Amino acid sequence: MARHPFEQLSAQETEKARDIVLKLHPNTHIFFRYIFLEEAPKSEIKKYLEAEHAGKTPEALNRRAMVMYDVIGDDKIPYYNESVVDITAGKRLDHKVVGKEFHASLTVPEFRSLVEAVEKSQMFKECLEEYKLPEGFELVVEPWPYGGLLPGEDNKRYFQGLCFAQDTRSKNPDSNFYSFPLPFIPVMDATTQEIIRVDRLATGGKDDPMEPTKHNPRPVDHCTTSEYVPELLPNGPRKDLKPLNVTQPEGPSFTVTDNSLVEWQGWRFRVSFNPREGAVLHDLHFKGRSVMYRLSFSEMTVPYSDARYPFARKQAFDFGDGGAGTCANNLSLGCDCLGVIKYFDSVVTDTEGKPEAAPNVVCLHEQDNGIAWKHTNWRTGRAVVARNRELVVQFIITLANYEYIFAYKLDTMGGINIETRATGIVSVVNIDPGKQSDYGNVVSEGALAQNHQHIFCIRIDPAVDGHKNTAVIEESLPVKMNEKTNPRGNYYEIVKTPIKSPRWLDADITKNRVIKITNPSSINPISGRPVSYKFAPMATQLLLADQDSVQAQRALFAQHHVWVTKHMDGELYAAGRYTLQSTREQGGVADMVARKEDTENEDIVVWATFGLTHNPRVEDWPVMPVEIHELKLRPADFFTENPGIDLPTNRNEASRLANGDSCCDTNGTNGTNGTNGQARNFMG
Amino acid sequence: MARHPFEQLSAQETEKARDIVLKLHPNTHIFFRYIFLEEAPKSEIKKYLEAEHAGKTPEALNRRAMVMYDVIGDDKIPYYNESVVDITAGKRLDHKVVGKEFHASLTVPEFRSLVEAVEKSQMFKECLEEYKLPEGFELVVEPWPYGGLLPGEDNKRYFQGLCFAQDTRSKNPDSNFYSFPLPFIPVMDATTQEIIRVDRLATGGKDDPMEPTKHNPRPVDHCTTSEYVPELLPNGPRKDLKPLNVTQPEGPSFTVTDNSLVEWQGWRFRVSFNPREGAVLHDLHFKGRSVMYRLSFSEMTVPYSDARYPFARKQAFDFGDGGAGTCANNLSLGCDCLGVIKYFDSVVTDTEGKPEAAPNVVCLHEQDNGIAWKHTNWRTGRAVVARNRELVVQFIITLANYEYIFAYKLDTMGGINIETRATGIVSVVNIDPGKQSDYGNVVSEGALAQNHQHIFCIRIDPAVDGHKNTAVIEESLPVKMNEKTNPRGNYYEIVKTPIKSPRWLDADITKNRVIKITNPSSINPISGRPVSYKFAPMATQLLLADQDSVQAQRALFAQHHVWVTKHMDGELYAAGRYTLQSTREQGGVADMVARKEDTENEDIVVWATFGLTHNPRVEDWPVMPVEIHELKLRPADFFTENPGIDLPTNRNEASRLANGDSCCDTNGTNGTNGTNGQARNFMG
Repeated sequence: MARHPFEQLSAQETEKARDIVLKLHPNTHIFFRYIFLEEAPKSEIKKYLEAEHAGKTPEALNRRAMVMYDVIGDDKIPYYNESVVDITAGKRLDHKVVGKEFHASLTVPEFRSLVEAVEKSQMFKECLEEYKLPEGFELVVEPWPYGGLLPGEDNKRYFQGLCFAQDTRSKNPDSNFYSFPLPFIPVMDATTQEIIRVDRLATGGKDDPMEPTKHNPRPVDHCTTSEYVPELLPNGPRKDLKPLNVTQPEGPSFTVTDNSLVEWQGWRFRVSFNPREGAVLHDLHFKGRSVMYRLSFSEMTVPYSDARYPFARKQAFDFGDGGAGTCANNLSLGCDCLGVIKYFDSVVTDTEGKPEAAPNVVCLHEQDNGIAWKHTNWRTGRAVVARNRELVVQFIITLANYEYIFAYKLDTMGGINIETRATGIVSVVNIDPGKQSDYGNVVSEGALAQNHQHIFCIRIDPAVDGHKNTAVIEESLPVKMNEKTNPRGNYYEIVKTPIKSPRWLDADITKNRVIKITNPSSINPISGRPVSYKFAPMATQLLLADQDSVQAQRALFAQHHVWVTKHMDGELYAAGRYTLQSTREQGGVADMVARKEDTENEDIVVWATFGLTHNPRVEDWPVMPVEIHELKLRPADFFTENPGIDLPTNRNEASRLANGDSCCDTNGTNGTNGTNGQARNFMG
Repeated sequence: MARHPFEQLSAQETEKARDIVLKLHPNTHIFFRYIFLEEAPKSEIKKYLEAEHAGKTPEALNRRAMVMYDVIGDDKIPYYNESVVDITAGKRLDHKVVGKEFHASLTVPEFRSLVEAVEKSQMFKECLEEYKLPEGFELVVEPWPYGGLLPGEDNKRYFQGLCFAQDTRSKNPDSNFYSFPLPFIPVMDATTQEIIRVDRLATGGKDDPMEPTKHNPRPVDHCTTSEYVPELLPNGPRKDLKPLNVTQPEGPSFTVTDNSLVEWQGWRFRVSFNPREGAVLHDLHFKGRSVMYRLSFSEMTVPYSDARYPFARKQAFDFGDGGAGTCANNLSLGCDCLGVIKYFDSVVTDTEGKPEAAPNVVCLHEQDNGIAWKHTNWRTGRAVVARNRELVVQFIITLANYEYIFAYKLDTMGGINIETRATGIVSVVNIDPGKQSDYGNVVSEGALAQNHQHIFCIRIDPAVDGHKNTAVIEESLPVKMNEKTNPRGNYYEIVKTPIKSPRWLDADITKNRVIKITNPSSINPISGRPVSYKFAPMATQLLLADQDSVQAQRALFAQHHVWVTKHMDGELYAAGRYTLQSTREQGGVADMVARKEDTENEDIVVWATFGLTHNPRVEDWPVMPVEIHELKLRPADFFTENPGIDLPTNRNEASRLANGDSCCDTNGTNGTNGTNGQARNFMG
């Protein structure tokens, strides 16, 4: 049977795509970067989905792949290419030699080459000889993207390495090397694979010069151990936290078909996975009605605020630079979730374009999230309570020191929460003993955690009862007391502004600003208003870097909370397709908005930006507690009642009293027939 | 053994308090309203706690009660009294005859008297005769506080009744009567217990006059049934949601002593319960250090925005008017939480001051909240994951149509989340068939859910490493690019402003405004900065009513996000002690701020206001999905590392694959010795 247009490429399809490209580039060496599903044009997929949802057999669409690769010819200078190939037809549909002004996303082998180049570098060796590590310590070089080029720099392809010392005396390879930051950064020219420079870092505090001044030959002697693996904790892990298990004796409530189609509690959608965005949800329907065409985490940028050289370059684009999917963890039962888990596998490619299995990159499970709704009838005392069950599609990425946990959470009442959790180890640099800094917080002796921001962007491609939608700004505004409309001053007015052409806007809590993604042609029969899904732009701080800085110029998406654009095939990335070493956002949301299209009752895309200004606290060390953000999408006049009003309201028989008893609240009114205890009866 | 100063009154103590008061008022009738613990002065309790935490036997404090009651003398006019009595010494400490400008909080018997008065009223009977209810329908009168007096109204004690029709044909007393709103409101003079007026309600829509104009003799014929109890649902509850159980085979990780002292994962605190605030937490310590003296939900106001008479008066103060504790549900095993639950009981009093048991008014349980922290070492591929366990102290209140779920959630990493969930049934009024309104949304035929706000206030009485604290505003501000401090534009500065005298302030996301409650005398040895607990003021809309309106004047607390005041014994209520029928907030946060005290390195109180502008959607009907808000308090440089770094990181053995298997992620790296799966190994 033909694969569904949203199914990710199989290993076999990946190989076919590779072979097509290899044949088209004879007599050259091809360095493969990424091969993944190229989604067919929306116009084609729409037809497919219409047939599918009508219960017909859709006409299969040819399978397409995006193949990203370097062509290395006689001059040994790699040219970065992108080809879209039709796997089914065995031919190339599109080919682009990407201009030298753009850089391909980095790959893991490139990161490895930085470490190898450091090992071979005489320049680096000489630098290292100026410093003495404590006995038993070894160098660790952590590869990083080079960041945005600063004014005046050549636009070559560079990588940089952050350096640390690891205490090897415990013979534990997971001893935390981040506690011992070294004050230099080697920089590699990726073309020649040579270390061209070793930047020295200032280690001063408040009122010290911004340039590195004095040389400290023993830079980590004042640093201290701070471990997180259990066997290295001074007192071991705590022992008084008793097990809490989630059991589902009848199994999960979801079904998964074709490794991609998920059905659960009225929800029906496809999951795919690609190297750039990680897990993507497609074609979300709830109770038989279309809600979203595509939901994805589009971009994230992490700019650092340390004013000293070279930290203005310390700014990752964690989706564009290397790819969230590339960095996805292989998840593990009983570690990343509780209960009954379904894992999704994916396929990655090596430098020869050969597929490799990437097991368990996405997990799916149900979880309880407290009370969904409750009402007690004050006349009878009868309480009816339903619980809030969520279906979670989760993936977790590791980017050197940091991790992010991304989750789409669908609930039984038609709600969608899109969650980010930031955790991992904050990025630290060396600071002299006893000093404090305006650039961050000392979280461990000698380790300054630099202030930074994490700014995320979620791409919402809605299909609210169909593809023609209008985004409407809805505000609740005060009204001055007046005889005619507000004689007692308690009235406030709701003002709705449809977004007729592409634009950005910001959160405004003083106006209770909400974005409703409406379908003006589909009217709720109860309220008489257009059906919609709504969200409040997340009220978090936007990018702080000066507007004229490279940091700001390459992250225009991070400067407004909401962008509304007209859909165009292939426009998936908030900061543009090429972020590695970018100096200005190109092809991102700002460029999309600049096109003066019609976005009223059209196929639109809504982008939601939010983030975290992270001025580290000591408690973030050595591994930081999750910082959680949630974008909440809710149906608003989409249904004719609470779609979870039919949730089960019977009591959970597995719950126990703390004394071990399994029944009996003291007034004996428990449980049967939907009666959940009692309120005191007001009218009794 | 003597009771702890924070333990709520026992039934025996309640009776003693009653008897003391009865003896002091001979030859009169006493109508008892409330009897509950009067906390001893903080100065006395501090000494007690110092001894307790030093491991000494503290000198017992005399037990005190607040007794609220009406004295009804020969003239039959009740005078509202408040007495503080020393139960231990058997004497009165303080007595106040409360002035007629203030009204006592309402009691459940007063609500009952409204229903009785309506039944007896000829005036109401005549009103009712103008209307015809459908066959099989019966009148329901729902008692409400009268709300803020409008200009020109006598300051008598009134109650009002919202009227509905209930379909009795199902013979089910829980058939949802809110679907059939009737267009009149009887008003009772509480002193005479007579209906003095029946207000007629306009039922028009957009562009209709604000006054009731035409008489519809069959006002609910166009309304329709909308049920929520499972046996009345047309198709019954859904059957495909399989059970999800939380089991704790080794029991809970907490212990509870004296029905009040809770210890769990380093946390140690007392729980009490009173009629006004519900559950209160006292003397919170974490890992042996003081964090908070007292945490409470202080007030909530729910103003409605319908400009028509008499809805400007529709504004509940759910803590001050009747008391959150008074309205607390008796909770029930397996309904309100999952897992192993400990319930706390309380005592309420009847009109004769006699104690009655109020079982299960507060529940305590542990819950999982996803990943606490995770890091994967990219060099070895080893992932270490800890889960986020929370301890939840919860109570749930029913106020006529609405319910609120309040929870204090303490986590294993020193964090405190204070959560509100709004649910229940939105308040509706009758609207003519086919019309829409600017005052709300039609959520069921003939039922207009009026726009309104819910504005909460949490009282934080901190004791961060002791009672002398300073609240500091911390902001992250952009810095213009400049050669000296910000040569590349990436730097932002952190500006700290200590609050030296009482004031209010608002959330400001553009500044990433955070409040740090610091102890300037306790310096973190790692960072060199004062220890603190911090929170971000919640970025939600404040009160919308015109500043000159009664709604706004009686809810000054609802007009700013944060209030910082100096502690004074007895000042617990954000909108003041007397809110019922108030026309101006008195003795609330605004008055506290007006005192020009010193709040730097002093015993301070911080009040956090937040809320929800609730413009109902059809999905809120018939019972609304929870709207959740969380105030997040976090240690910031309070500890010398992540206090949860020692959380267990072993895998959960009860989790299962969706195919039923209990082990085996596909790469076989599961579980032993703190190893949680793998990331792809970058350096492999």
